[in-house]
Amino acid sequence: MTDEVQPPPPRSRRLPRAVRERQILDAAVEVFSRHGYHSASMDEVSDVAGVSKPMIYSYLGAKEDLFAKCIRREANRLLEAVRLGVRSELPPDMQLWHGLRAFYRFVAEYRDSWTVLHRQALTVGGQFAGEINLLRSKAIDMVAALVVTAGTKKGLGELAEFSGPALAVALVGAAESLADWWLDHSDVSDGVVASWLMNLVWLGFNDLVEGQVWRPSS
Amino acid sequence: MTDEVQPPPPRSRRLPRAVRERQILDAAVEVFSRHGYHSASMDEVSDVAGVSKPMIYSYLGAKEDLFAKCIRREANRLLEAVRLGVRSELPPDMQLWHGLRAFYRFVAEYRDSWTVLHRQALTVGGQFAGEINLLRSKAIDMVAALVVTAGTKKGLGELAEFSGPALAVALVGAAESLADWWLDHSDVSDGVVASWLMNLVWLGFNDLVEGQVWRPSS
Repeated sequence: MTDEVQPPPPRSRRLPRAVRERQILDAAVEVFSRHGYHSASMDEVSDVAGVSKPMIYSYLGAKEDLFAKCIRREANRLLEAVRLGVRSELPPDMQLWHGLRAFYRFVAEYRDSWTVLHRQALTVGGQFAGEINLLRSKAIDMVAALVVTAGTKKGLGELAEFSGPALAVALVGAAESLADWWLDHSDVSDGVVASWLMNLVWLGFNDLVEGQVWRPSS
Repeated sequence: MTDEVQPPPPRSRRLPRAVRERQILDAAVEVFSRHGYHSASMDEVSDVAGVSKPMIYSYLGAKEDLFAKCIRREANRLLEAVRLGVRSELPPDMQLWHGLRAFYRFVAEYRDSWTVLHRQALTVGGQFAGEINLLRSKAIDMVAALVVTAGTKKGLGELAEFSGPALAVALVGAAESLADWWLDHSDVSDGVVASWLMNLVWLGFNDLVEGQVWRPSS
């Protein structure tokens, strides 16, 4: 009687809600990246996640909510990856370099995330513009902090040719544009893409055509 | 009998079709810029243009066609303005400078055009993505021609840190991003915005923090 097999307690088959939500979001990012917002089906998200449709609706809402939550999660992931990449004890060029490296490494590793954040969210249009603008403004603030700190030390605040916030806006635009191009040219490594942009914004085109090259110091 | 007043020939009241089409497109750009694609009404386009709705439909089609034609016309205008700005007899820095000046002057002068091309077309989404991508790739080709010509002269083709097409993509992204930011900061003059970007991409951040400044040679 004592070695009678006990059935597992029924709750053990249930995954915690947070785990389920992660499975669903992972599946949704994959499906939205592949088909775009309009063509993606909740049936496919359900198949890929291995979670029933009613559970998806109950946990994360309808397609629109699900897409918004994908954008929010991937945006935070991306910002976090870049933030961890920048090491504030290093000189400004190495900080920028590590930030760019982290950004392009993220795009390489989470290609679906970037596709959803950049291509799919833009082509869906206005209803998700708020989420995307929030991501961009956080990214711009992060770059501006670096640029303004370095610039202020050198007394550039006074100079008409210099605006930290505007340079940060330009740099983020350049990084996005190049990441988007890279989706169609993925034979290039993430390190090479990062070094192209680093050389442009750090050295500038004038130094480049004079044969100067920026390379990381370690 | 001979001095009997002749009524004007009926055709003289009719404007040529090309003139009407221009009036309609001008009005449509204004209305789309103000309200966005979805909220813009054909009634308002008709009011602003002073052209009846049936004539708009007959000449330029329904709202979707009208929007696509606005994008196409404004994109060609913008490219033409930049092309005329770049003077190929000048050294590369002055060519780039004049190109950037022409771009930001266009955005200042035709604010509605830029708003439709950049903000409104992006928030409408996928159906107009083809038109916008065509504009971007023409702009990138134009910049790449300049960058690659200057780079090839100096033998940069071999260098891993240099890619003409990628730099052109980055530069166009930076210019767009800064133009978009400028819509909300229009107290800055177009010349100053152009000089910020010129200093970033020509001199690079390293020279800037060392106190170097690029200024046009004439």
